[in-house]
Amino acid sequence: MRMKELSDRSGVPTATIKYYLREGLLRPGRRINATQAAYDEEHLRRLRLVRALIQVGRMPVATAREVLVAVEDDALDLHSRIGAAVWSLPADFPDTGAKTPGTAPPPDAEAPVPDAAPDPVVAAAEERATELLVRLGWSFGSAARGESPAYRTLVEAIAALERSGYPCAMEDLLAYGRCADQLGVVDIDMIEAYEPGTRMVEAAVASTVLYEPVLLSLRRLAQAEESNRRFGDGG
Amino acid sequence: MRMKELSDRSGVPTATIKYYLREGLLRPGRRINATQAAYDEEHLRRLRLVRALIQVGRMPVATAREVLVAVEDDALDLHSRIGAAVWSLPADFPDTGAKTPGTAPPPDAEAPVPDAAPDPVVAAAEERATELLVRLGWSFGSAARGESPAYRTLVEAIAALERSGYPCAMEDLLAYGRCADQLGVVDIDMIEAYEPGTRMVEAAVASTVLYEPVLLSLRRLAQAEESNRRFGDGG
Repeated sequence: MRMKELSDRSGVPTATIKYYLREGLLRPGRRINATQAAYDEEHLRRLRLVRALIQVGRMPVATAREVLVAVEDDALDLHSRIGAAVWSLPADFPDTGAKTPGTAPPPDAEAPVPDAAPDPVVAAAEERATELLVRLGWSFGSAARGESPAYRTLVEAIAALERSGYPCAMEDLLAYGRCADQLGVVDIDMIEAYEPGTRMVEAAVASTVLYEPVLLSLRRLAQAEESNRRFGDGG
Repeated sequence: MRMKELSDRSGVPTATIKYYLREGLLRPGRRINATQAAYDEEHLRRLRLVRALIQVGRMPVATAREVLVAVEDDALDLHSRIGAAVWSLPADFPDTGAKTPGTAPPPDAEAPVPDAAPDPVVAAAEERATELLVRLGWSFGSAARGESPAYRTLVEAIAALERSGYPCAMEDLLAYGRCADQLGVVDIDMIEAYEPGTRMVEAAVASTVLYEPVLLSLRRLAQAEESNRRFGDGG
């Protein structure tokens, strides 16, 4: 098929397809003449995966390029291929809302904390995170765990709670962990509905990212519900 | 105390404190002379909350100003004060990670869908969201629900799943809702540990924001755990 059809069938604009080609995220089509190339079903499939990583997953291009290599490496088991994609997703959740228009933060408000000496709050948070995962019985990736963006985010989040004067109790972390455990099962059930291989990796990336706002908004609505039960006028 | 001590005890740089004063987020101190003012414990407490809202919660300054008014309105019941604060938190979760440095998205990749006519996908998502909340038995705020940023985010998230080719099943939404229900109870338990009034509202805002990265990172780690159980080499 020509570029135009590839665009129509994938829903990705041609300018974006050309950008992915330039960045090496999509293999060049078969040359027909000096200005045209032909694309096949493999290009379409790959294009959908690239779109899932970059547009849905907001993954940096350089990261997406690395992820694609792992995803298409037949020597890896399915877990490693899904893991390569999901672990590489940006996990800088606390930045949510930072770019709301009209907000002009003061010049030094967001200055990063210099990370020369090891921060004792972060070190303590790391200990609690490790204890939490052990108590949850999560055995996976204890060696590679430190490299996972999600694990780093967890540690930073526990440290942020401490610094803000709202230290979290282990029992609360455990309650969160048990909920996450249930969600992990629901999520992998969803992913298993897709055929094994790249399509499943795509689904893993998409559902990981796209269910995050579902989860966070439901949590806020549930808080409102519970708050009304306990403190509301009718409560 | 002087500005310097307020800065030391809160960990907020003096330039940022001056910015909060200019923006009306912090009441002026008691004038001592032409160039100096004195601050008290109330300033310190308020400063910590403002910092959590703006720096951790990334709330726009104008929103933070409104929230602080509601939080300190003694005429409102506790549920309304907690609600006013929590509902106003930015809930544009899907933007997470969009500004990762080094990512140059193609010019038209993120062009917003024009919202002139009512979008049928959004209308369908709204129906599903309403059905979900009814099935969860969440009675609260059915009238005000449409105004809640969290509810709008939920609708948009369901629509985004549909548009991306990964439509969600009601049973999956229900599974997420039931987890959120448990978290709502855990969250309000946490908040109840603080004394009723402003301090409790503060805790609600801080924990709502600061537990979000905890929850999302734990979900990702749980997915990795479950994926390894099912698809891993040892599984």
